[in-house]
Amino acid sequence: MTDQILKIEKALDRFAPETDALYKTVTDAMRYSLLGGGKRVRAVLTLEFCKLCGGTEEAAMPFACAVEMVHAYSLIHDDLPCMDNDDMRRGKPSNHKVYGENMALLAGDGLLTKAFETALSFEALRAVGAERAARAASVLAFCAGERGMVGGQCVDLETENQIVPLDVLRVKDTGKTANLIMAACMMGCIAAGADEERIEAAKDYALHIGLAFQIRDDILDVVGDAQELGKNIGVDAQNNRCTYVSLLGMERAQALVDEHTRAAIDALEVFGGETTFLHDFALQLASRSK
Amino acid sequence: MTDQILKIEKALDRFAPETDALYKTVTDAMRYSLLGGGKRVRAVLTLEFCKLCGGTEEAAMPFACAVEMVHAYSLIHDDLPCMDNDDMRRGKPSNHKVYGENMALLAGDGLLTKAFETALSFEALRAVGAERAARAASVLAFCAGERGMVGGQCVDLETENQIVPLDVLRVKDTGKTANLIMAACMMGCIAAGADEERIEAAKDYALHIGLAFQIRDDILDVVGDAQELGKNIGVDAQNNRCTYVSLLGMERAQALVDEHTRAAIDALEVFGGETTFLHDFALQLASRSK
Repeated sequence: MTDQILKIEKALDRFAPETDALYKTVTDAMRYSLLGGGKRVRAVLTLEFCKLCGGTEEAAMPFACAVEMVHAYSLIHDDLPCMDNDDMRRGKPSNHKVYGENMALLAGDGLLTKAFETALSFEALRAVGAERAARAASVLAFCAGERGMVGGQCVDLETENQIVPLDVLRVKDTGKTANLIMAACMMGCIAAGADEERIEAAKDYALHIGLAFQIRDDILDVVGDAQELGKNIGVDAQNNRCTYVSLLGMERAQALVDEHTRAAIDALEVFGGETTFLHDFALQLASRSK
Repeated sequence: MTDQILKIEKALDRFAPETDALYKTVTDAMRYSLLGGGKRVRAVLTLEFCKLCGGTEEAAMPFACAVEMVHAYSLIHDDLPCMDNDDMRRGKPSNHKVYGENMALLAGDGLLTKAFETALSFEALRAVGAERAARAASVLAFCAGERGMVGGQCVDLETENQIVPLDVLRVKDTGKTANLIMAACMMGCIAAGADEERIEAAKDYALHIGLAFQIRDDILDVVGDAQELGKNIGVDAQNNRCTYVSLLGMERAQALVDEHTRAAIDALEVFGGETTFLHDFALQLASRSK
């Protein structure tokens, strides 16, 4: 675990709900999913964009934690029987398998709520002031809401088992995957007090790496190694899912990944500073095998 | 419909998600529950406390709408099969009966998210500034979260069919009912720029009317008129629910309602202004028959 991830885990533990005798089950359930590991990609992006715009780690951390809380809530609700009905998540039983459906529902609701409590916490306001905190939290709400992640989920449910045009697939993946990454990157800039041009550039970078990530995901479901990926492959084809690969074929799908990656890297130009990490991060996503 | 309620309905319609062709089902589902009527008690309290503290209706409205959004989300999730499994709400089919469980789950998530988007909207910030908006939204998050409404739901689930001591019943009802009323009243004061003493007094008032409301609810389940109430009575006894009436008996339960009502009215003292509405509102709750 890198030093940065360690710091994120520590901060998450601090912002996470305390285990309370009165509300033990729901606080346990919230902690189970929030602190249950994961790559913390979104939190890292918040910290990196804040640093790139001249902000401190302290300024970015509440927002980095808030975006991880929204991510954790979305996974809990996604796994519920009425949604994907997944029993496992990251090699562990999913939240409702451990705590029951009703507590998992509440734990998701609680984490979504906690995200805003965290982004507007005393610590956040002390570090960046009310104006930036309010702006960051409002970006998070927009990206997580019905024109963002919730909207993407809706499109996903409505187009299940359908062959959809490429632009609908893009709307779905932008909603489901890219939007929260956009919130992560934009909040980093906002916490640092960046100007609109840089906030917009961070949004572009996030959109493109988000889409590249999702298309690469579709590709790996065909050519990936199940053991390396830690999940079964061929699942999309089995379920007749409409993916970038089924619509475009393998070669054009990978070309699209490369195109989005180039666009993401181009978006970094306006930031004068040290963009090596974000540059390499985009490249790694494009060629990742797990 | 009073003029005030009419204004609230108009504002809710404006802040509600637009019906979007892409996300039609989830936006329809969100609008169905948010704009589906209700007494708007919480929104009215936000407006009244803001007025009492010298603030404008314009300043209070985004927060009044935000608290109604949180209330609407909580009803949708409450009605889901894994929770109370209620098919009807306010004389209409509940959200999941119309839109399906998965869309109802998303609609609830979307409304909770939208509450924070609304409280931190351009309109909110323009009316009250970032500092008050951030404070109000953070109070809403706290009151809706795991030490508030979500916590109350957790206690409710965990003590189902159990006889619990009075203090546990109080924790449950504070969480489930009083907390969102507290958020409504406190946000009204915060929007007006009230001092801490008045914010605390609004919180006290809300706590006491919230508890009085809940105890009166338990009483009406025994002595109420089903037709007037618009719901069946005797439900608590049938389900062996532990209530204030089952713990204290009818007489002491009503005495407790009166005690909370007096405490609520006492809390209004620090506000020099015109408190007739809030005074009468507390009294009406104490003797309501529907």
